[in-house]
Amino acid sequence: MKIGIVGTGALGSFYGAKLALAGNDVHFLMRSDREAALRDGLKVTQEGTSLLVRPCQAYDNAADIGPCDLVVVTAKTVANPALPAQMAPLVGENTRILTLQNGLGNVECFQKAFGEGKVIGGLCFVAATRVAPAVVEVYFTGSIRIAEPVGPAQPRTEEIAALFRAAGIPCRTADNFDAILWKKLVWNIPFSGLSVAVRATTDHIMADADLRSQVLALMDEVRAAASAYGHTIEDAFLQDQMTATDKLGAYRPSALVDFEKHRPLEIESIWGEPLRRAQTRGVSVPRMALLYALLKRLSVANIGIAK
Amino acid sequence: MKIGIVGTGALGSFYGAKLALAGNDVHFLMRSDREAALRDGLKVTQEGTSLLVRPCQAYDNAADIGPCDLVVVTAKTVANPALPAQMAPLVGENTRILTLQNGLGNVECFQKAFGEGKVIGGLCFVAATRVAPAVVEVYFTGSIRIAEPVGPAQPRTEEIAALFRAAGIPCRTADNFDAILWKKLVWNIPFSGLSVAVRATTDHIMADADLRSQVLALMDEVRAAASAYGHTIEDAFLQDQMTATDKLGAYRPSALVDFEKHRPLEIESIWGEPLRRAQTRGVSVPRMALLYALLKRLSVANIGIAK
Repeated sequence: MKIGIVGTGALGSFYGAKLALAGNDVHFLMRSDREAALRDGLKVTQEGTSLLVRPCQAYDNAADIGPCDLVVVTAKTVANPALPAQMAPLVGENTRILTLQNGLGNVECFQKAFGEGKVIGGLCFVAATRVAPAVVEVYFTGSIRIAEPVGPAQPRTEEIAALFRAAGIPCRTADNFDAILWKKLVWNIPFSGLSVAVRATTDHIMADADLRSQVLALMDEVRAAASAYGHTIEDAFLQDQMTATDKLGAYRPSALVDFEKHRPLEIESIWGEPLRRAQTRGVSVPRMALLYALLKRLSVANIGIAK
Repeated sequence: MKIGIVGTGALGSFYGAKLALAGNDVHFLMRSDREAALRDGLKVTQEGTSLLVRPCQAYDNAADIGPCDLVVVTAKTVANPALPAQMAPLVGENTRILTLQNGLGNVECFQKAFGEGKVIGGLCFVAATRVAPAVVEVYFTGSIRIAEPVGPAQPRTEEIAALFRAAGIPCRTADNFDAILWKKLVWNIPFSGLSVAVRATTDHIMADADLRSQVLALMDEVRAAASAYGHTIEDAFLQDQMTATDKLGAYRPSALVDFEKHRPLEIESIWGEPLRRAQTRGVSVPRMALLYALLKRLSVANIGIAK
């Protein structure tokens, strides 16, 4: 299968390498890492073992790749406004586009650009870091959920899930994409948000009674918003998130990592779009509104301050 | 009149110097600045003119001062837990204690330690900075409001107001201390809070539509809390605060100055106590709760990081 990877940071490099080594015809759309990838190949290390894609089909222009069967989008959502134009040459009549990006509004972004039927949603649970040009370290290989934007999984959804499984990545389909997106936001909105707002790992948030109670209050707001869209999230799910986070210890959400490296935060997809959807349905989300305003300003003022 | 000044940062030095030069017997309780004050006197500069209190009655132990007619407390409220013990020797049978500190709970702190009848409340509007040991620069001499903790102004309230006026400081009495405290918090809670949370001067907050709307939402919460205690704050007052802040330009609230200098914030008197009072009366103040939790953590993590 001819696959195009758009957004070759840690995630795209990892998934692309696994798919390539499983025998797929994988093409990487790269910028800064392209030279290193062409010269030395794309390297992924993982618990002592190491994968090498060499030669690596790395391009800086989508027109040189041409139409693919599948385009996997792993770019940060801050790139979304510019992405459709950049990746247009990858998208032919029968191309499917899988977005594995964070938060809400991503499927819609590509549907609007390329048509409703072309886009499939996904969520990935993984921890990986780009440690050097075309060198990625994976700490937690995790899993992927794949879903149709609306309605239950279809044969094409199952086919993509099977493609990832064949490449050694645990992957299941889900029948309600919006529901799993909101569930992930139940964690992401409070923990990623507060960790940036107070510049602290999750253990500090969990150990502070006032912040901990704000986490729960924020989770409740996210739950109320999800509920307004027909997605019921149980108390037990919220409690599970707290318990799991307690066990994480001094965990540094990727938003905090980005912030500390003076990269833009995924403000709109993680905090802005959920807030707007809550407000559209008249749900009271005062904490989400305050957190969004604070993070947006922090992110803008923080970008490029230092390297 | 024998006056003791407790808290000889910028405010205490300024008011103490004015009172001393007006002929009062002013004693300063000092720590780090005492040596400079004894050697060179206490200096206050203001629009090119300069006041000098020399010799300066500076002490590092309240027992060496003894009972005063009036004790003026200008210390930061973070010192309140330790202050009563430190200043006890200043307080005799007929001593009045005037607290000019920020926020809620200060009058109660000294009432609890020294008796209800001894304490008088005050609010000051002034901009001054300690630029060197025993050297203070005043940018805006402003004014003072003096009030009984409960009920209308009394002869003793008027007497203290007259004392400040005689020293050249505009000073009026007020008939409802709680009402003016809450009104000041309508500005302080959002602007001091958000300026620290996003590390920005007020012009950046006013220019950001989302932050600006959070300011108004926070003002509304403070107003609702004040209302639960019988203090009506009109829409026009909120609008006036916005208009006045627009005119301030790149204003740096003193909380932001403190934060940037890695000093503790007055978390409890400005954000914590108003929040608790709102919650006591069952007022919904979700933004005040989130802001308090964020600022408390930011302040604790920030103290003494660097100088």
